[in-house]
Amino acid sequence: MDVGIIGGTGPLGSALGARLAEAGRTVVLGSRNPERAQESASRLGDRWPQLADGLVGGGNELAARSDLVVVAVPWESVVPVAAEFAEALAAKTVVCVANALVRTGSEFAALAPPRGSVAQLLQSTLPRSMVVAALHHVPARDLAELGRPVHADTMVASDFQSSAGVVMELLGSIDGLRALYVGSLAAAGALEAMTAVLLNVNLRYRARSSLRVVGIREDDGQ
Amino acid sequence: MDVGIIGGTGPLGSALGARLAEAGRTVVLGSRNPERAQESASRLGDRWPQLADGLVGGGNELAARSDLVVVAVPWESVVPVAAEFAEALAAKTVVCVANALVRTGSEFAALAPPRGSVAQLLQSTLPRSMVVAALHHVPARDLAELGRPVHADTMVASDFQSSAGVVMELLGSIDGLRALYVGSLAAAGALEAMTAVLLNVNLRYRARSSLRVVGIREDDGQ
Repeated sequence: MDVGIIGGTGPLGSALGARLAEAGRTVVLGSRNPERAQESASRLGDRWPQLADGLVGGGNELAARSDLVVVAVPWESVVPVAAEFAEALAAKTVVCVANALVRTGSEFAALAPPRGSVAQLLQSTLPRSMVVAALHHVPARDLAELGRPVHADTMVASDFQSSAGVVMELLGSIDGLRALYVGSLAAAGALEAMTAVLLNVNLRYRARSSLRVVGIREDDGQ
Repeated sequence: MDVGIIGGTGPLGSALGARLAEAGRTVVLGSRNPERAQESASRLGDRWPQLADGLVGGGNELAARSDLVVVAVPWESVVPVAAEFAEALAAKTVVCVANALVRTGSEFAALAPPRGSVAQLLQSTLPRSMVVAALHHVPARDLAELGRPVHADTMVASDFQSSAGVVMELLGSIDGLRALYVGSLAAAGALEAMTAVLLNVNLRYRARSSLRVVGIREDDGQ
């Protein structure tokens, strides 16, 4: 299974792509500007030669043709960009990592997107795709530090449990990242809004915070 | 500073009262039925003799006269009960631990209370009080096991930072519980909704889950 990342040159997209290539996947880093994506892929391959074979840069339309597609564009662009590729994304698992947030003065606040969350809005925009919400609380900079385990949990929500399972297996292949299924896409609003809470923790405690769910036996965690 | 708990005979209220009495506070467990509250306090004092001096059972109106008051009634009752004691609660720090949730089939879902959260609705009901949202993700059963550290974080939100500080110091006196300030009461909606996510984790993984924020230096955690 190859993975495409629409918006693969941003901080989260490129870090996620590198981690997945490290875990043995072929990853298409997509961008509106294919040359920029090729440069991104080359830069990552120069820095970590073990990624060079697995990372390909190209246009977003090339990323959208992959078996599984992550939409990693800024939250305001998720719906218009996804709508543009609706045909290529039909019958596929589409991962939504977006959080609708604004900074208001000295703190971050979650917005309330139509349908309750960016992920639910994306699902309604792509009714033929299986949307999975994931990776909200994993700092891009933690993902970007290849060679260091991530030490975080990602809570995964979807109306399609088998798609959630595929995404959990994919993300579980990243060193130190544990994926937990938290139910239908109705949970995405809470996951997205919690990101604003963690960003406030970061501001206040000068941290790069993420979440761990405790009280689960470790062997049940995947 | 003595602490009153309105709804102090419920699972969270009685467990929190026992923990705070263990930490040296005088705690009034309040109930609509004062005799029931006295029985609760006696039962806890019989089981843990070191609590006997610190725990008092009484009516909710006695609890509301304490220096700091926790509202631990079911979420549907928070506003009507608080409104009843608005006069006694004026100019005081009032802790809201409620989560507006429903179980729909095989999962829990967060509701969207007016004003965005139960805590914000409570603040608008008690404009002369300083509402602090806390303890959403700490299982009552973990609190109830005196002698075992809690091993969880509680994220604390309030429009009144000094009240948040008082609550964080109070909760930080519970063995193993770390309190983190996450900003204004606008964060309460995310905190309350995340409780539904954790309950889904509990159903799926047969767990008693709570949250830890990682990526913060421990010494900054209080």
